[in-house]
Amino acid sequence: MISIHDPVHGTIEVTPAEIKLIDSRPFQRLRHVKQLGFSELAFPGATHSRYAHSLGTMHMGTRMVERALAAIDLPVDERARLRQTLRLALLFHDLGHPPLSHVSERVMPKLGDLRLGPFADDPARQATHEDYTVKLVLDSEITELIERLLGDAGVTAARVASLVLGRPPPGDEQAFVVAGHDLTTVLHQIVSSELDADRMDYLRRDAYYCGVSYGNFDHQWLTSNLTALAHDGHYVLGLQHKGLWAFENFLLSRLHMFLAVYYHHTSTCFDHLLGRYYEAGEYTLPADSEAYLERDDIHLISALRASKSPWAQLIVRRRPYRLLVETHDFGEGPKDTELDARLTSAGIDFFRLRSKGVLSKYFKRRDEVAPLLVIEPEVGRTSRIEDYTPLYRRFAEAVAVSRVFCLPEQLEQARRLLAG
Amino acid sequence: MISIHDPVHGTIEVTPAEIKLIDSRPFQRLRHVKQLGFSELAFPGATHSRYAHSLGTMHMGTRMVERALAAIDLPVDERARLRQTLRLALLFHDLGHPPLSHVSERVMPKLGDLRLGPFADDPARQATHEDYTVKLVLDSEITELIERLLGDAGVTAARVASLVLGRPPPGDEQAFVVAGHDLTTVLHQIVSSELDADRMDYLRRDAYYCGVSYGNFDHQWLTSNLTALAHDGHYVLGLQHKGLWAFENFLLSRLHMFLAVYYHHTSTCFDHLLGRYYEAGEYTLPADSEAYLERDDIHLISALRASKSPWAQLIVRRRPYRLLVETHDFGEGPKDTELDARLTSAGIDFFRLRSKGVLSKYFKRRDEVAPLLVIEPEVGRTSRIEDYTPLYRRFAEAVAVSRVFCLPEQLEQARRLLAG
Amino acid sequence: MISIHDPVHGTIEVTPAEIKLIDSRPFQRLRHVKQLGFSELAFPGATHSRYAHSLGTMHMGTRMVERALAAIDLPVDERARLRQTLRLALLFHDLGHPPLSHVSERVMPKLGDLRLGPFADDPARQATHEDYTVKLVLDSEITELIERLLGDAGVTAARVASLVLGRPPPGDEQAFVVAGHDLTTVLHQIVSSELDADRMDYLRRDAYYCGVSYGNFDHQWLTSNLTALAHDGHYVLGLQHKGLWAFENFLLSRLHMFLAVYYHHTSTCFDHLLGRYYEAGEYTLPADSEAYLERDDIHLISALRASKSPWAQLIVRRRPYRLLVETHDFGEGPKDTELDARLTSAGIDFFRLRSKGVLSKYFKRRDEVAPLLVIEPEVGRTSRIEDYTPLYRRFAEAVAVSRVFCLPEQLEQARRLLAG
Amino acid sequence: MISIHDPVHGTIEVTPAEIKLIDSRPFQRLRHVKQLGFSELAFPGATHSRYAHSLGTMHMGTRMVERALAAIDLPVDERARLRQTLRLALLFHDLGHPPLSHVSERVMPKLGDLRLGPFADDPARQATHEDYTVKLVLDSEITELIERLLGDAGVTAARVASLVLGRPPPGDEQAFVVAGHDLTTVLHQIVSSELDADRMDYLRRDAYYCGVSYGNFDHQWLTSNLTALAHDGHYVLGLQHKGLWAFENFLLSRLHMFLAVYYHHTSTCFDHLLGRYYEAGEYTLPADSEAYLERDDIHLISALRASKSPWAQLIVRRRPYRLLVETHDFGEGPKDTELDARLTSAGIDFFRLRSKGVLSKYFKRRDEVAPLLVIEPEVGRTSRIEDYTPLYRRFAEAVAVSRVFCLPEQLEQARRLLAG
Repeated sequence: MISIHDPVHGTIEVTPAEIKLIDSRPFQRLRHVKQLGFSELAFPGATHSRYAHSLGTMHMGTRMVERALAAIDLPVDERARLRQTLRLALLFHDLGHPPLSHVSERVMPKLGDLRLGPFADDPARQATHEDYTVKLVLDSEITELIERLLGDAGVTAARVASLVLGRPPPGDEQAFVVAGHDLTTVLHQIVSSELDADRMDYLRRDAYYCGVSYGNFDHQWLTSNLTALAHDGHYVLGLQHKGLWAFENFLLSRLHMFLAVYYHHTSTCFDHLLGRYYEAGEYTLPADSEAYLERDDIHLISALRASKSPWAQLIVRRRPYRLLVETHDFGEGPKDTELDARLTSAGIDFFRLRSKGVLSKYFKRRDEVAPLLVIEPEVGRTSRIEDYTPLYRRFAEAVAVSRVFCLPEQLEQARRLLAG
Repeated sequence: MISIHDPVHGTIEVTPAEIKLIDSRPFQRLRHVKQLGFSELAFPGATHSRYAHSLGTMHMGTRMVERALAAIDLPVDERARLRQTLRLALLFHDLGHPPLSHVSERVMPKLGDLRLGPFADDPARQATHEDYTVKLVLDSEITELIERLLGDAGVTAARVASLVLGRPPPGDEQAFVVAGHDLTTVLHQIVSSELDADRMDYLRRDAYYCGVSYGNFDHQWLTSNLTALAHDGHYVLGLQHKGLWAFENFLLSRLHMFLAVYYHHTSTCFDHLLGRYYEAGEYTLPADSEAYLERDDIHLISALRASKSPWAQLIVRRRPYRLLVETHDFGEGPKDTELDARLTSAGIDFFRLRSKGVLSKYFKRRDEVAPLLVIEPEVGRTSRIEDYTPLYRRFAEAVAVSRVFCLPEQLEQARRLLAG
Repeated sequence: MISIHDPVHGTIEVTPAEIKLIDSRPFQRLRHVKQLGFSELAFPGATHSRYAHSLGTMHMGTRMVERALAAIDLPVDERARLRQTLRLALLFHDLGHPPLSHVSERVMPKLGDLRLGPFADDPARQATHEDYTVKLVLDSEITELIERLLGDAGVTAARVASLVLGRPPPGDEQAFVVAGHDLTTVLHQIVSSELDADRMDYLRRDAYYCGVSYGNFDHQWLTSNLTALAHDGHYVLGLQHKGLWAFENFLLSRLHMFLAVYYHHTSTCFDHLLGRYYEAGEYTLPADSEAYLERDDIHLISALRASKSPWAQLIVRRRPYRLLVETHDFGEGPKDTELDARLTSAGIDFFRLRSKGVLSKYFKRRDEVAPLLVIEPEVGRTSRIEDYTPLYRRFAEAVAVSRVFCLPEQLEQARRLLAG
Repeated sequence: MISIHDPVHGTIEVTPAEIKLIDSRPFQRLRHVKQLGFSELAFPGATHSRYAHSLGTMHMGTRMVERALAAIDLPVDERARLRQTLRLALLFHDLGHPPLSHVSERVMPKLGDLRLGPFADDPARQATHEDYTVKLVLDSEITELIERLLGDAGVTAARVASLVLGRPPPGDEQAFVVAGHDLTTVLHQIVSSELDADRMDYLRRDAYYCGVSYGNFDHQWLTSNLTALAHDGHYVLGLQHKGLWAFENFLLSRLHMFLAVYYHHTSTCFDHLLGRYYEAGEYTLPADSEAYLERDDIHLISALRASKSPWAQLIVRRRPYRLLVETHDFGEGPKDTELDARLTSAGIDFFRLRSKGVLSKYFKRRDEVAPLLVIEPEVGRTSRIEDYTPLYRRFAEAVAVSRVFCLPEQLEQARRLLAG
């Protein structure tokens, strides 16, 4: 085992085979993709990369899966295979992230251009960063490394990619059915769900680097109280009921990180400016793996610096539009057309942004998502989390922040207009 | 200045005069009154005392008052007097706490017995720990020490006591009116309100010692965004709007500390056992200051060890009743008389406990409490926090936990009864 | 597994059998024995108990032993037996600690009175807290609980006691020889050595509760780099060379905890006063297990409060002698008889205390202690730590603090005498 | 005041005038200069920038100066002027740092080219990053901003630059002599000395981001115990003797950060590769302010990516030489010419690096550095720290790490050669 220092988890341990995968070019590229993009402008400490986040997600998810599967009787080598496949899915889950911001997904090509075969659903839609993750797992030096280093242990690139997507590997549908237990869902829930390793890492990591306390939650207690339960023929994530307050705290940690950090007016404004820059088509993302690997934050920032686009120059010279108005609601949406009309008629150069989040999807999208079960062993009862306690109904509503930004030179004029 | 190491605040600084007050017997007694009483049984780390909490409250409140009054023009010596009086009110706010648990307030005498003169409202009601705090400030070696050490600076025992109570000192009603500014309310809000130094210290301290993360909130950010505002002729606490998420997080920290720690089934059960022990009248609290000072945790535990009371023996031998059922609601209250009847008819020895908390009183008790104001300097607007954002309406409801405990020997029988 | 919240380790997990042992009266007694005794007077946060420290030591040592034995091929059930026996030795290592302070060992009876049979070396010498630990493991309700709960797994009270003492169990000398590997030494090193779980817990815990940063060291990195190596026919602890700076930092953490906390003038002074109180023979410790279990901090403090001894009254009323002079040296010892003579002839009531510590015993007591080996896998070399790098020669010397304390009333007079 | 979130200090407060200086292009450039350069390759969390470090240094130094000058009687406005000038010197101390690594100083021009006038000592020597700091303070948009925003308060660019350099401003030698107190030395000691704000920030920050505990020390305690003392006609930094262990711990924190982080073999190796790349003269740093501002990490990395230099390609593709041998000594230096000869004759491509540090310069360079004084107020004694306690003689010696690196392809061959 090789130990890596990590500020969030202390020490992260990786195997010699994993080190070779970590040293691959697609994974090393993540060193130059910042985890929080423009947030660094409001939170000077937030310089962390998706590289460290990916290592942390693998570390966190390993502890989760060990707990979740502890009570299920599995052959030693099969348990090791599932664990190793999951570790790679966790390690690589952000491999396809574009430079700097989720906004960069807008300049991605059609999914069909990525030539993912059965791993693509609709070739006509625009590709996402997740599609690029699948692409790089299935079509880069990583593909061959997985087969060579871990093929004998039953780990394949296709199985890793399928855990990222949450669908069984095409043509290998029983890959995660072991000793009669279908573990496909629970394994995918650890990669991506309301209580996944991705969030377990990023909330703590983002809070740590931003210097805010919103992202703190009792991750150890939460992990200690995880389990997996058979439900409708396949295993899903379960939580011991004494881990309930820790889970509620985790949900609220995420809400506050959204309100205070992810939806911060500075980064939402710069994201908007980047979107405007992209509209001109000056910068696009290639479908080819090798070409895509060159696209990191350094590549994009160099392009912005060299560009004559006024939007690029606003970004490079850090001249954002200024926040004029901010309102909050429960997702019902403000209809402030009157305000917009006044600003327009006064000749104010402004734009309106709206950031909206739902605390928990378990309520309104009950039938779409795999459930999280709460267990009360003393009384032998198991419930879906949204049914367990009435307190959770508070989390069904969305929370939204609406903002109007205007040109700095017009800020005083616009404020007078609003006050008047 | 003398520096004291503190795990929560790092370094706490006190003046030579304050050290003499800290070294007094009434304050040293707090070394032997645990902050969380029986919580230590569920959280082995929670051994901290009200002594350290009181120092921390003084420290925290000092930073709050410096911020809150920063923008108000006050003569240097008057500012120093207010600051020093407040520091003592913060330092002494828990002076009268009884041994081990709030439950011990049940064996306190009538308020009249404390002979507090104009500081007593209704002599016929039972005294509280707050009355004892006033008693010890006004009638112990502390009284004389304050006058001797700080009398020249305009600090009096009566003024300190009045800041604890939140009423101007009898016969000295202008004590906290300076240069035309009535600061009585804002000073008292720092000692006791929804955003007071007491909570700012104990949430962090209790979380620190219990080893849970619920009590984390951005205390520095919150403090940095405090101010004081004139409102209806007197000053009240104000909050810059960019401190809003930190305040919401602080409220939720408190909720989670209640749910996970303060209402933990183990300590609520032991509190109940102690209450039953007290019913026999074997142990009472004296009205006299000197005699009261002997009553600390060591005195009470020694009494419990020596007692033949079956309730005392359950406590001393750590043989609590066992948790049988737990339900949550929004304060509307369960009417589970059917369950109680079944347990009774089956001869189960059980009791029912209910713990209930309100996140924020600013909504339903709007007219009773001094408001917390939110300021938006850019648009020159000030609102009561409950009006500022619709999001806060989530915090108006109470949250309650109801539990049934039964005799350990009957636990299996009772569980079968419920399952059947 | 049952999870326990702990502020230092986050979550500590224990088995149902261990919970029964933890709930025993001898272990619960440790709730009322403070870890740092009188240190709380100088560090108000330091209220933690040996109860939490013992749980933490078990937790820490488990991670150490899993690492240390990872590379040794052992049958699954034998590995489990060694692990469980070690966990109990770690859990119980402080079971026999007397009330409040190590000074209380002075009122312990002769070792012979404890009737430990072959576990006693010299019946004529005074017993120590370690002897009482062995006594309580071998002769209390714990003895029977171990046999009943864990006897089938090969865990016996005698084996647990022997790991505490570091000698094979009498008549069962091969207890820790498995598959030809003699693990007696390495297991004992985890219980007690220069790099043991006791220190790994108490340095961090004491620093955490005192609010000082001296006790921080990279415990995860250190543990990740542990191993066990065959050396002269038995296994001893080994350290990967990249853990070297973490180990050096750990040694220096301990030095600074001694200088700043354990040797603090306040607690050394109170320890001295307690020793003087004991001289009169008013309070002694019984040899019988049941009677000994009643002796905790509450028992001793109640006795001190009730005592007419002037030394007891100085302690109870917190009236220590005052620090007059402090000097540091490298253990060679000051011969300041001239100063003492001057104080004596001036009629000053004073006493002199000297606290001395060695950073590492591996140098001057090389032949007495089991070695710690450093491994450089790349070059296939293994060295004793004292030979590995010349830098460690800095740690061979002792460091000592000498102090003179005098009666508070004579402090000014004594200072003038020294200045004159 | 504007509050900025910072992970190390919690909240950093800056004035509106300072925000304008922070928003200047020279200061914003520091966002793209990593604090630890190549260390990120060994410590994935260490992505922090000199931007955040500079804010933290200003914050830390402000607390230090408030403490140090607290006991000196100064006019309010003069105290404010000194504080503000110092804050800017702290904020800007790293302004001239070259991209990525100190190694980049090798491609700086002659000092004379920077045209610093009386602020340059020897025009013929090569410029350093400190000279560029002075350059940017005296000749960029910052220069004009200081005069415009803070000129009325007596703050000038020349005075700020002179505090960075530690020499009185040319022609304005009494700038820091106030009310007869010469504060030049103590102010400069806070910017740059063995106990300066730079170290107080970077040790904690680097440890925080690397995820190691070496950089922890009791900064609050240390700061609380700071003072300033008149010594040979000017004020120097003083330390209350009870802050001594905290200072010793701080020195050792720094030693361990050197050994474990700053001298890590990975970053020293990449620094060497960068030095080799620079030898060809392909990349140089311009003397002109405007041109220099374009040179940040992004500029240099883009240049390395575009370069055909084999050294640049080793860096970009992360193909370092491999560590073959590492030895430690006390600075006396190994003469391992025999080893080098064997490697050379075997045709091994290798290089040798040596990293050396002194814990404290107060001993051997006693006459060159301004002293740090230790105060014992009780006995009215003041000593230079190197005379105060014999324990400090341990810190006079240097500690060095010597390493040999070789081409990866030859690692096995070289190891066999050494083993044979």
